[in-house]
Amino acid sequence: MDHQSNGTLETAGKVIRCKAAICRSPGQPLVIEEIEVDPPQAWEVRIKILCTSLCHSDVTFWKINAGPASVFPRIFGHEAVGMVESAGENVEEVKEGDIVVPVFLPNCKECRDCKSKKSNNCSVFKYNKYSLNMPRDQSSRFRDMKGEVVHHFFSVSSFAQYTVVDVANVVKISQDLPLDKACLLSCGVSTGVGAAWKVAEVEEGSTVAIFGLGSVGLAVAEGAKLRGASKIIGVDLNPKKFEIGKNFGVTDYVNPATIDGKSVSEVIKDLTDGGADYCFECIGLASLMQDAFSSCREGWGQTVILGMEMHGSPLSVNSYEILRGKTVTGSMLGGVKPKIDIPILARKYLDKELNLDGFITHELSFRDINKAFDLLLEGDSLRSIIWMDK
Amino acid sequence: MDHQSNGTLETAGKVIRCKAAICRSPGQPLVIEEIEVDPPQAWEVRIKILCTSLCHSDVTFWKINAGPASVFPRIFGHEAVGMVESAGENVEEVKEGDIVVPVFLPNCKECRDCKSKKSNNCSVFKYNKYSLNMPRDQSSRFRDMKGEVVHHFFSVSSFAQYTVVDVANVVKISQDLPLDKACLLSCGVSTGVGAAWKVAEVEEGSTVAIFGLGSVGLAVAEGAKLRGASKIIGVDLNPKKFEIGKNFGVTDYVNPATIDGKSVSEVIKDLTDGGADYCFECIGLASLMQDAFSSCREGWGQTVILGMEMHGSPLSVNSYEILRGKTVTGSMLGGVKPKIDIPILARKYLDKELNLDGFITHELSFRDINKAFDLLLEGDSLRSIIWMDK
Ligand SMILES: [Zn+2]
Ligand SMILES: [Zn+2]
Ligand SMILES: [Zn+2]
Ligand SMILES: [Zn+2]
Repeated sequence: MDHQSNGTLETAGKVIRCKAAICRSPGQPLVIEEIEVDPPQAWEVRIKILCTSLCHSDVTFWKINAGPASVFPRIFGHEAVGMVESAGENVEEVKEGDIVVPVFLPNCKECRDCKSKKSNNCSVFKYNKYSLNMPRDQSSRFRDMKGEVVHHFFSVSSFAQYTVVDVANVVKISQDLPLDKACLLSCGVSTGVGAAWKVAEVEEGSTVAIFGLGSVGLAVAEGAKLRGASKIIGVDLNPKKFEIGKNFGVTDYVNPATIDGKSVSEVIKDLTDGGADYCFECIGLASLMQDAFSSCREGWGQTVILGMEMHGSPLSVNSYEILRGKTVTGSMLGGVKPKIDIPILARKYLDKELNLDGFITHELSFRDINKAFDLLLEGDSLRSIIWMDK
Repeated sequence: MDHQSNGTLETAGKVIRCKAAICRSPGQPLVIEEIEVDPPQAWEVRIKILCTSLCHSDVTFWKINAGPASVFPRIFGHEAVGMVESAGENVEEVKEGDIVVPVFLPNCKECRDCKSKKSNNCSVFKYNKYSLNMPRDQSSRFRDMKGEVVHHFFSVSSFAQYTVVDVANVVKISQDLPLDKACLLSCGVSTGVGAAWKVAEVEEGSTVAIFGLGSVGLAVAEGAKLRGASKIIGVDLNPKKFEIGKNFGVTDYVNPATIDGKSVSEVIKDLTDGGADYCFECIGLASLMQDAFSSCREGWGQTVILGMEMHGSPLSVNSYEILRGKTVTGSMLGGVKPKIDIPILARKYLDKELNLDGFITHELSFRDINKAFDLLLEGDSLRSIIWMDK
């Protein structure tokens, strides 16, 4: 691993000029340009990104061509690992040279939510999907070579060689963890494993249905398998996902396109003697959330929402089924409290209790970052690790 | 108390002729008539009803004038206490002379749901709100004097001096419990206390909002107060309910009709620093369920559905708020497992850990049963205890 801390002392307090993959208009290939990255202000950390990966939320926001989320130029990317280049005033949690995972979900450690076991929804720095800048002063730390402001994304913006992140969005992790595995824990995989372990608390022998077999869904499967689920049903339109899913514990596969005359929920009810104990929606479509709700068992069935519905469609359910004992719940980042739980997941990987290797299907150099978009859109890749120095 | 067992030996195995308050057409006053009540078949119990009370669900179904639920003649009533007159074959759980509470929600004790701590939704005898007859053979045990079948209601039909109930719907209780208090535990009060204790698991210091201050809502308040909730907000259109509510622990009152320019959820968020920890919907209106959902706190807020929506309107919520950590759940009978939990509630009353006295606002004799409907519809009464022998 390349944990060199070159430049730390020389660059601290100064503007850094480096490369970033900038999105200048929605749905268009990113352009690698020189940018200027300001030094961290108080409570901020400047991070040298070591590797990053592409998550579906990047693609979702990259495509948006209208409304408050459609603001460019912008630096996407929110799954990454990096090394602290310098820290601003008041930052005591990390120091130059530390290996950190930046996370879109803030964790101030001090508010009622951060102190409660029941929440990971920090109420001081509320995660805002429309946020364009730094959380404390709402300004940007990025400029392009014409001096124009370049916007942040999800408080991370990891598609740059250097980024500035609030200390609330930084998790220090063990130097023992391979960088590519650390990167995975930044968003998607933590979301899926967290959802199985912390939100649903899947138990031995239970039945699970997963709607959408991307990295989040497969991480749910991995988490459910490790908890001893007896049946893990994957629902996906891409038949290749079943073979891939087997590596993560998926035991049964339902392709909504090839079930004649039956609904997905009917098939799942048949497979589970009346409905799955836990259904996870990992795409962000209201119609799929309803399928998940219909597929879960009366009495104690839980539907866990993980996908972000971007069309504004409400989730609509029959309240009589709720009276029958069904529950709908959900969480950002699978209920994971970044600063507490990501180090725990890292430890479980190092102790060989959690398999992360299968999520990495491709490795790319930073200059080929647009290929990661193609791979994700084609649907067969899981995570492409993008190395910043290659 | 009048625990006389007169007639037991003489009547066992024979048809009993007695009085019942029959509903012959929707929304019309009940008519007290002679009926014939068949002996219990295998797995059934014939009960001499000692007292009964009127619950909102009786009124709801009494009004329905179309569709599968609108079937007459019928004997309503599902909150009651009685004495076993005789038991059919295979009944080992109760015997002649036992004091029992009949309950609309079956509890076979043997199925996966009945054996699970997480469910009270017996999967062998699934509660069916449209059921018109006995659960095992779908026939009636009642006939009028013309020989016409009279239908059952909610598997109980307690507006009769004798009724026949499946053993799955019978809970034996202590003879020490006053009959009127036992009657309350048959439905509404158990639902409210159960919802606070078993579904939401309200903790000390938490904030609670209750939509609808009928007996169920006030029992939620009582349960939440006993668990040490710091704020219990009652939402009701009837301003008299606030004074009544104080006796059950309601600390704040919101009248949706008199809040200018604000929504109910805005008022509740102001009162609770961002939303209540637990919101209970006790009416059965989809719009109120949505208000309850909006009024609960992000991070860990739970909306508990207790009311049965009879208009077929779906519950529609913003899934993004679910991602923020809100949960929607619900239960019939407040998560109470009849045969396990009703005796526990009875014990808590006898140990003075649970106050049931305040729920009884009126006492009537059976011949005045229609007055109970008037009192409930006027909105100021809670429970009218109807004594069968008076
Ligand atoms: Zn916080
Ligand atoms: Zn992500
Ligand atoms: Zn009732
Ligand atoms: Zn059962």
